Amino acid sequence: MKTRVTELFGIRYPIIQAGMVWVSGWKLAAAVSNAGGLGLIGAGSMKPELLAEHIRKARAATDKPLGVNLPLLRGDVEDLVRTTIDQGIRIAFTSAGHPGKFLPLLKDAGCVVVHVVPSVKHAIKVQSVGCDAVVAEGFEAGGHNGFEETTTMALIPQVVDAVEIPVIAAGGIADGRQMLAAFALGAEGVQVGTRFAATEESSAHSLFKQKIVESGDGDTVLTLRKLAPVRLIRTAFAMRAVEAEARGADKEELAELLGRKREMRGMFEGDLEEGEFEAGQGVALVRDILPAAEVVRQLMDEFLGARQRVLQSQEE
Amino acid sequence: MKTRVTELFGIRYPIIQAGMVWVSGWKLAAAVSNAGGLGLIGAGSMKPELLAEHIRKARAATDKPLGVNLPLLRGDVEDLVRTTIDQGIRIAFTSAGHPGKFLPLLKDAGCVVVHVVPSVKHAIKVQSVGCDAVVAEGFEAGGHNGFEETTTMALIPQVVDAVEIPVIAAGGIADGRQMLAAFALGAEGVQVGTRFAATEESSAHSLFKQKIVESGDGDTVLTLRKLAPVRLIRTAFAMRAVEAEARGADKEELAELLGRKREMRGMFEGDLEEGEFEAGQGVALVRDILPAAEVVRQLMDEFLGARQRVLQSQEE
Repeated sequence: MKTRVTELFGIRYPIIQAGMVWVSGWKLAAAVSNAGGLGLIGAGSMKPELLAEHIRKARAATDKPLGVNLPLLRGDVEDLVRTTIDQGIRIAFTSAGHPGKFLPLLKDAGCVVVHVVPSVKHAIKVQSVGCDAVVAEGFEAGGHNGFEETTTMALIPQVVDAVEIPVIAAGGIADGRQMLAAFALGAEGVQVGTRFAATEESSAHSLFKQKIVESGDGDTVLTLRKLAPVRLIRTAFAMRAVEAEARGADKEELAELLGRKREMRGMFEGDLEEGEFEAGQGVALVRDILPAAEVVRQLMDEFLGARQRVLQSQEE
Repeated sequence: MKTRVTELFGIRYPIIQAGMVWVSGWKLAAAVSNAGGLGLIGAGSMKPELLAEHIRKARAATDKPLGVNLPLLRGDVEDLVRTTIDQGIRIAFTSAGHPGKFLPLLKDAGCVVVHVVPSVKHAIKVQSVGCDAVVAEGFEAGGHNGFEETTTMALIPQVVDAVEIPVIAAGGIADGRQMLAAFALGAEGVQVGTRFAATEESSAHSLFKQKIVESGDGDTVLTLRKLAPVRLIRTAFAMRAVEAEARGADKEELAELLGRKREMRGMFEGDLEEGEFEAGQGVALVRDILPAAEVVRQLMDEFLGARQRVLQSQEE
């Protein structure tokens, strides 16, 4: 398949595995890239030295295109950016911050730079500063989320109308029917998170993977809206956050409730009581833990099958 | 075009105009049915006598299939149901209540009965009681909404997997690209609300129509969650509700704040200060007030155009 997204990255299928803290290390990223998609190492949970190690290991495991996700709000993000460049990565997905931050540095090093946004306004900004593509991520996405609460169905066609650069759809996409839906809306690629968290190569704790498989419709919730909106599986901590919100807890109280390292305690250590488990509404479509290459293959099979079905719908 | 939905209703295009309080009277419903879709008279804002009058006028204006939307939670809904049957309507869309309520009455009269749901669990219930089809409506939809907050992109494939009856997708759908996306997800028809509210034949106040045209990304909000979640355009009253919610207002306080008749004051009377304006996230894709027949034509043109584009995406 050929789209501007496959051309931009030099990949076979327009499927990008989202950079996910504590979940997408070198093993997952290399497996996705080897399968014809684009694997992203999630730098958000790594110190620069650890990121360098993950890049080296991924490089040893695949000679295919490979990227890094860089959360721009982190204090030491410049070190992560320099590590990414120094280690020879030439595809950077940036998020959570101003898209122009470090853009000259990345572009000077020859990187393709893509920024993740939750709204039309931000997508226009991403294009105006000179990014090569934009990931438009809907309300149903796992993890951090925008204030507009615009869903993937509503967001993608608006972003496609508003910018010229290629649009990658994200948010709730876990199967190939949804991938085709994203293409119908005008996207030229998809970024898939939660489905790849439940793979053999993901570094998520086995209890997190199991939670994803068991979760159904309505089992995630967007919470901590006054702090930084985040979509979590409805575990004990998530429900405490929901209750605090319902009684009008302010930003300070929510910050205290959140404390520190809940992402690690949940997704990496499997603490079902105190941890955070970031996942999108697509959890409900994930019913098994598979090798990442099998996920890529299924996505493409379902995409082509759905396309065939839609084609066959008879016209008069 | 032929799907189980077009067959079920005997219509040309799988496009259903949502029943909308204060907005979809006989003029809009007849115009949509004449254009090849299925028009629904929204009984939610009508007394039985007024509903009878609207049905008679619609019948005089079209000989095409025509339906009525019946909100099952209303105290006098049985009168609305009997009026619908007595006036010769044979297509009923029910919502907001138990799908089995009055189902025998409607089925005995020979009606096709469809129920609107926000979740997979409810869709299974709808099938089990014997409805003919289900409308699965996502979080981005205007007006009343479910507690699960499942988006159209996440909801439709789950419902399609869970039931055998035909699935009609709703929530945020305002153009033909989104209609194709719904089909990619497995829907066999779409229900479109907000786009039809901004038509010449809609009985919405001109200021409401203008608000829809002017609204962009992020200009609607889901609020009154503790009472009955509803998606509104961000006007003065909506923002008061949002503020009350943020400081933890309870159900009683929200009920008092809401008071009565805000839907009428907003959508029918155009009171931008005190009224409610129910609209989905699709507002951002509505840029003009058109005749309803032109909306049907555009939806189909865009649908077919998007299908052609998706087809042409090259395989290797």
